[in-house]
Amino acid sequence: MTKPRGRGRPKGGTDSRSRILAAAIEEFGERGYEGATIRSIAARAGVDSALVHHYFGTKADLFADAADVPLRPDVVVPIILSGPRDEVGERIVRYVLESFERDDVRRRGVMLLRTAVGGKVGSPLIIGFLTRELLPRVARRLDVPDAELRAELVASQIAGMLMIRYVLGVKPIADAPIDELVARVGPTIQRYLFD
Amino acid sequence: MTKPRGRGRPKGGTDSRSRILAAAIEEFGERGYEGATIRSIAARAGVDSALVHHYFGTKADLFADAADVPLRPDVVVPIILSGPRDEVGERIVRYVLESFERDDVRRRGVMLLRTAVGGKVGSPLIIGFLTRELLPRVARRLDVPDAELRAELVASQIAGMLMIRYVLGVKPIADAPIDELVARVGPTIQRYLFD
Repeated sequence: MTKPRGRGRPKGGTDSRSRILAAAIEEFGERGYEGATIRSIAARAGVDSALVHHYFGTKADLFADAADVPLRPDVVVPIILSGPRDEVGERIVRYVLESFERDDVRRRGVMLLRTAVGGKVGSPLIIGFLTRELLPRVARRLDVPDAELRAELVASQIAGMLMIRYVLGVKPIADAPIDELVARVGPTIQRYLFD
Repeated sequence: MTKPRGRGRPKGGTDSRSRILAAAIEEFGERGYEGATIRSIAARAGVDSALVHHYFGTKADLFADAADVPLRPDVVVPIILSGPRDEVGERIVRYVLESFERDDVRRRGVMLLRTAVGGKVGSPLIIGFLTRELLPRVARRLDVPDAELRAELVASQIAGMLMIRYVLGVKPIADAPIDELVARVGPTIQRYLFD
């Protein structure tokens, strides 16, 4: 049963708040941090700019809330790396692609990729995530030399694939089945990690 | 012998024109298409906004001029692909990285990556380059099945590497010697193309 959504101007409440957040993720995702404005986000959410300020403060504050990824490297990394070692590469590619099939993950992921690469504001966010959260955790669990370089090479291939598939949307990668990409890219990840 | 550059306000001429273009490449590169403005580009070049309009027209026109890459896939692709087949992967990685050591190529390359991924304006440019210029040329020269998918997988890894090394600047990829990256990434490219 879906709750009918009124067409009138919202008076506030959790519904407006979550619509503003969704609108922010889409605006930042499409136009980058610099291009999106409180006004454009408010228009997209169907609310007054004042309401956006009321709930989220400045554009920078709103961006921080929108960029709060539900991705927990401390949970995910051990699970992915702890299975059979010769399947780790394929498991990583499959995990990432299947996550991006979820609308909420994909929208936020595209927003983060766009803002991280697109300008000065998003970059520290993704650089911090890579250097403090993701790479050291992966590196610590690999008993191989050059673990940080290996982890970052993995990140470079995963990021490039996500960018072409989801941000730019260029075929044939954009519409390739997940199994196909797992078979092609999985061995790359495997080789970067262990060869 | 270098020509002394006057500190006064430039009156125009080819020197101003090339400084505006260089400033545009840096502004678009740092702030993305949406974030850069005619005003900020003029300030960076030390000229009036009116002079920018005079030489280049609108921001979109200026972007088109700044994005005019001196990269000729019709020249480069045959050379890279026509040497010994088992070294093609390494040759591609080395060619790209050595090109990016040149200041002019790197600045323009960073600008293109940032604007292509960062928003709606740059994306069609890089999508057009990939789908019309680069991928078909590579695919035509490969006598393998799935040539377009293979070429695009190559592009995904090269783009991811360039982004981490030159746009985000995250170590250890950011300061790895070219030979190291050629040895690590070359076999990936080789496998995507021929395995």
